[in-house]
Amino acid sequence: MGRVTERRKVIRIRDGAVSTRPDTLVAEEPLEIRLNGKPLAITMRTPGDDFALAAGFLVSEGVLAQQSDLQNIVYCAGATVDGSNTYNVVDVRTAPGVTVPDITLERNVYTTSSCGLCGKASLDAVRTTARWPIADTPPVRVTPELLASLPDRLRAAQRVFDRTGGLHAAALFAEDGELLDVREDVGRHNAVDKLVGRALQNGDLPLSRAILLVSGRASFELAQKAVMAGIPVLAAVSAPSSLAVDLAAETGLTLVGFLRGSSMNVYAGEDRIALRAAAAQG
Amino acid sequence: MGRVTERRKVIRIRDGAVSTRPDTLVAEEPLEIRLNGKPLAITMRTPGDDFALAAGFLVSEGVLAQQSDLQNIVYCAGATVDGSNTYNVVDVRTAPGVTVPDITLERNVYTTSSCGLCGKASLDAVRTTARWPIADTPPVRVTPELLASLPDRLRAAQRVFDRTGGLHAAALFAEDGELLDVREDVGRHNAVDKLVGRALQNGDLPLSRAILLVSGRASFELAQKAVMAGIPVLAAVSAPSSLAVDLAAETGLTLVGFLRGSSMNVYAGEDRIALRAAAAQG
Repeated sequence: MGRVTERRKVIRIRDGAVSTRPDTLVAEEPLEIRLNGKPLAITMRTPGDDFALAAGFLVSEGVLAQQSDLQNIVYCAGATVDGSNTYNVVDVRTAPGVTVPDITLERNVYTTSSCGLCGKASLDAVRTTARWPIADTPPVRVTPELLASLPDRLRAAQRVFDRTGGLHAAALFAEDGELLDVREDVGRHNAVDKLVGRALQNGDLPLSRAILLVSGRASFELAQKAVMAGIPVLAAVSAPSSLAVDLAAETGLTLVGFLRGSSMNVYAGEDRIALRAAAAQG
Repeated sequence: MGRVTERRKVIRIRDGAVSTRPDTLVAEEPLEIRLNGKPLAITMRTPGDDFALAAGFLVSEGVLAQQSDLQNIVYCAGATVDGSNTYNVVDVRTAPGVTVPDITLERNVYTTSSCGLCGKASLDAVRTTARWPIADTPPVRVTPELLASLPDRLRAAQRVFDRTGGLHAAALFAEDGELLDVREDVGRHNAVDKLVGRALQNGDLPLSRAILLVSGRASFELAQKAVMAGIPVLAAVSAPSSLAVDLAAETGLTLVGFLRGSSMNVYAGEDRIALRAAAAQG
């Protein structure tokens, strides 16, 4: 749809010199996700891969777990401005027999029925809704050297970032380091949802042999998305939060942070990191 | 409450050498925001400044606009785990006479009644709900040199980032460059909400002479928060999105991006930037 970037006039100031020129910006538009015709969520996203984004979002929410759960996804035909489709409203229709929770209601009820909202409740919620517990048999094993090579591969595969500097990126790698897929979005969660949704559409869930790399920090919600897709290894270029580490420890997710150059921190699931090999080379 | 950071064990790998040590992580916990007793939203945030966060969130949503709109904010007394308060549920009570929209309903209706969700609808929604149109009289005027000095002042004021590397930061500056307030949070929106909420609590809205600096990108929602608080200048260290630029142009917000060293890009509201002075020094 050619809306991944947009052009705007910009005034550049460099060491006191002023110039005016067109600039390429990352596009941002709202996307409304409907579930069987019912509005569910609105996210600000970079247009493109909208069906994958919607599907991945619903994997994270525990609604979809496999290709056969999905009947189809369509742009809402009535979502028009001046008669033309905005392509900003998608409707996800589940296959017959898929249990569709009353998400909006459930979200409020889950957190307020006990009136004890806390980190532990958030962890429990992921654990009880995860349709694909992390189950990599035999366990995925990766060396620090392989992990250290991934950020460069991600950057090499980022196409829009070079032009805009404004995108979060997320990539899936095979355990041998092969780049499987990369997505970019103005929202970090969206980039991961697009990856996971595409995998669902391709019948590739659970991603039980995959490594997920994100360009920024590892928040609880990103760790949640990894767990919900059955991904065993999450690596982030920046810091994780306390709750992301707790979730990883509880679910068996390997969580690597500050992945920079040949350095990294392993916060959970260190059994998947070939540490001995690393020490031997030290 | 001492929960801004938490300690976890981490395995560090540096050039093949492996060591285990305690690490300081930014704390992340869910916060449920209630409005007059009714659950409204849940955000993952860094604990601390929770009342300010809740108040600022409601400024962004158009519910609160000034100190007198607020009756009080309390931690939900019943929000307990094992009998002790979780401090993760806050209830914001509005003063008598404040119109409280049915937010949940309105959100869905606003976007779906026309079935034409698009960037323009998002812009219109901000324009129609803004209680403090940007009205800096006389207009704020800042030099590129002053703007260029702000990121260093922000970093100097960041306390938690040095320990965790995991926080977004936002700061308010006076037009002469004086640092007015700085907040950090695991979520970029939360840091801005905390600033705005604190200003509301202090009776300082609209912030019609302030400059808002954010440590990352300038998304639509961050621009929205600036507009809703009546802030005339938003500066970001990284890239803005197309919709953030559009909102700035429509509302008269000055939007500066890629503020690094002595360089910056001005995307909208350039009348507030003393460009001639900059050129003369070039």
